[in-house]
Amino acid sequence: MTTVAQSWVEGANESHGFGLNHLPFGALEHKGAVRLCVRIGGLALDLQQLATQRLLPDFCDAELCAPTLNRFLAMGPVVWAEFREHLTALLHVSAKSNVQKKIREALVPLDKATLRLPLEVGGYTDFYASLHHARRVGELFRPDQPLLPNYKHIPIAYNGRASSVVVSGTPVRRPWGQRKPAHEGEPPTFAPTAALDYELELALVIGRANALGERIAIEQAEEAIFGVTLLNDWSARDVQAWEYQPLGPFLGKSFATSISPWITPWAALDPFRVPVAARETSDPRPLDYLWSDKNQQRGALDINVSASLSTERSRAATLPPMPLGAANTRDLYWTPAQMIAHHASNGCNLRPGDLLATGTISGPQREQAGCLLEVTRNGQQPLTLANDEQRAWLMDGDEVTLSARCERDALPSIVLGDCTGYIAPA
Amino acid sequence: MTTVAQSWVEGANESHGFGLNHLPFGALEHKGAVRLCVRIGGLALDLQQLATQRLLPDFCDAELCAPTLNRFLAMGPVVWAEFREHLTALLHVSAKSNVQKKIREALVPLDKATLRLPLEVGGYTDFYASLHHARRVGELFRPDQPLLPNYKHIPIAYNGRASSVVVSGTPVRRPWGQRKPAHEGEPPTFAPTAALDYELELALVIGRANALGERIAIEQAEEAIFGVTLLNDWSARDVQAWEYQPLGPFLGKSFATSISPWITPWAALDPFRVPVAARETSDPRPLDYLWSDKNQQRGALDINVSASLSTERSRAATLPPMPLGAANTRDLYWTPAQMIAHHASNGCNLRPGDLLATGTISGPQREQAGCLLEVTRNGQQPLTLANDEQRAWLMDGDEVTLSARCERDALPSIVLGDCTGYIAPA
Repeated sequence: MTTVAQSWVEGANESHGFGLNHLPFGALEHKGAVRLCVRIGGLALDLQQLATQRLLPDFCDAELCAPTLNRFLAMGPVVWAEFREHLTALLHVSAKSNVQKKIREALVPLDKATLRLPLEVGGYTDFYASLHHARRVGELFRPDQPLLPNYKHIPIAYNGRASSVVVSGTPVRRPWGQRKPAHEGEPPTFAPTAALDYELELALVIGRANALGERIAIEQAEEAIFGVTLLNDWSARDVQAWEYQPLGPFLGKSFATSISPWITPWAALDPFRVPVAARETSDPRPLDYLWSDKNQQRGALDINVSASLSTERSRAATLPPMPLGAANTRDLYWTPAQMIAHHASNGCNLRPGDLLATGTISGPQREQAGCLLEVTRNGQQPLTLANDEQRAWLMDGDEVTLSARCERDALPSIVLGDCTGYIAPA
Repeated sequence: MTTVAQSWVEGANESHGFGLNHLPFGALEHKGAVRLCVRIGGLALDLQQLATQRLLPDFCDAELCAPTLNRFLAMGPVVWAEFREHLTALLHVSAKSNVQKKIREALVPLDKATLRLPLEVGGYTDFYASLHHARRVGELFRPDQPLLPNYKHIPIAYNGRASSVVVSGTPVRRPWGQRKPAHEGEPPTFAPTAALDYELELALVIGRANALGERIAIEQAEEAIFGVTLLNDWSARDVQAWEYQPLGPFLGKSFATSISPWITPWAALDPFRVPVAARETSDPRPLDYLWSDKNQQRGALDINVSASLSTERSRAATLPPMPLGAANTRDLYWTPAQMIAHHASNGCNLRPGDLLATGTISGPQREQAGCLLEVTRNGQQPLTLANDEQRAWLMDGDEVTLSARCERDALPSIVLGDCTGYIAPA
């Protein structure tokens, strides 16, 4: 039984998910300037103010007094661990009262803070790590061969667009795009998408990684991970369907990708590591560069993830957000270490601030779906919401929220920052 | 007949391609620091030294005293034009002799300069703008349907990997990767690629463009272009073939992409603008957002592009580089303005320093091919080089050079910076 570390910060120990065991990083805007912060309970600890109080450690002082985490990420896992230890001591009940007094001045209530994107995202890669998602999408478009022959050998991925990664809360404007002609020989149409979807994903935030031309051994792969965040890979399914052959998704995705404002440190997830998902007996053993005993034993993550929806009507009726789908990251076919080892297997360099997302997280059951494409069978079978509204796809005014929670036995839970987006008209 | 502006800089007027009408931008390393520069003849003009001499205009002084062009790019086309005018006056024969004397101190012979990547590349998009290339590649893999139904409606593209964009001269390490099993039921292999290829491309360098959620009208699209550079989209064809379904090329491309060290200003290409390539009478009219009279009349570029190869044996015999293939950008199906208008058609934001590449440039004739995949029919019919060596794909020790030249009537020519890469062993 793990001892639960207690914080002196008011409300932190009862915050259910944002206690001393978590300490996620973010960025808040204060008087026009953006500063890095760490969340404890319902408060954001302004790191620049902590530096002014001379309470930041020398070894990462300048790197944390910046508008984004990138320079801190580049310092690597030893520094991240030292900083986490330092911060934990400052916020622990055993901290001296004069220290507590100073820190109190750097705590900002979250309802008074505007949160910004805490990263410069240089690269955004989207994997396809859920076999259940890949299979169900495949059934829709290739009923004779739902799962392609490469799926169980390669952690399939594509390059996403980094410039349009936005922080949770940023409205998402319904994109225009080309849609397939209704009949052969007719021209395609250019119009606002009529098939707007969300995708429930988890993203790894890369810290210090590899130089160009150098691979990363799977045994060392997790050293590149600074933390995780929820990610919504908004998708215009009609645009995507018409454009994606032969080079993959492009404008059907690149109009916006939302992430949580809080980056959960990889270290905080340590108690929630589990063995890789059980394979079918006929499944191939991954190639050596994707295989390690440690990865098999505890390479996966046990995180409950879910998506919910509020609509103009549900908000007018003050209903709570209505569930869309829920799953668990332990059901993914590929692990974070495998994703990283594969990404670097050709010598491609990862950089601090890069995002590696899992792709839509769906579970083995039909209702464990991480996007509408699966639930509504490409829009053919609309979903009936808790207030009896129907949705084939997202409507203007809809707001999707991704949530995630780690819970095991008597351990204090961890709640990832919500990732929310409101659909604005085209 | 255009009057040829003469420069006082020694050798500039006889430099065949790097005269006063060109003035491309680059970055040189000097005593450990990287500085922006402009090329005139065989010399690089160090802009920081020019600033020290108080010869840079105030309006872009700080932006040009930086290690990359990004801040200058963000200033937009009016500033770029003013700076070009300013620089042209300084280097023109009519410049005062005391000014010439000062500038002379800022001129560095190119054989003494190490050139660096002059951009922070935040996004790299690769189009598929050559119909001839798309059709010939399609014939190899889908003989029943070489050209997909979307091709003549959509400027097809995918997101490339920005982190591995390198400057010409950087060695390219042969990447490892997964290759398809030889027989069904067998596992794939993980080994150095056995099908390494080059791709002859032109890339647009984006300057100031659009905010997220805002489209770019085709009439304004060229205002986003700062300049162009050659680009080699190195490709591992065996890796690509096994991984690319269903989400497109990924590790088969992301190990390295080379660009010229010199960015040719868009304004310098003005005399080399031509009407869009003739269409087949059955070809559809592009949708309105991809159509403008101006684009039809002079949206294309008349640039001769070519690739050449030197091998260990050819260098030992001191043979000149041997031709691989040559084409002209006027044969591309889609123009720069169409590529930009399409890229932003869903509201995706372009940023200063982004690269939008054409994809392999091939012409209507078989020998006008911009990659080995086409020439050797996916490696099945090896190419015989000028020294009688054969190549199905690139070998270790091979060096590929992309070159480009604009030539029309009596106009002074423009030569784009060469883009070279040497294949280092895995």
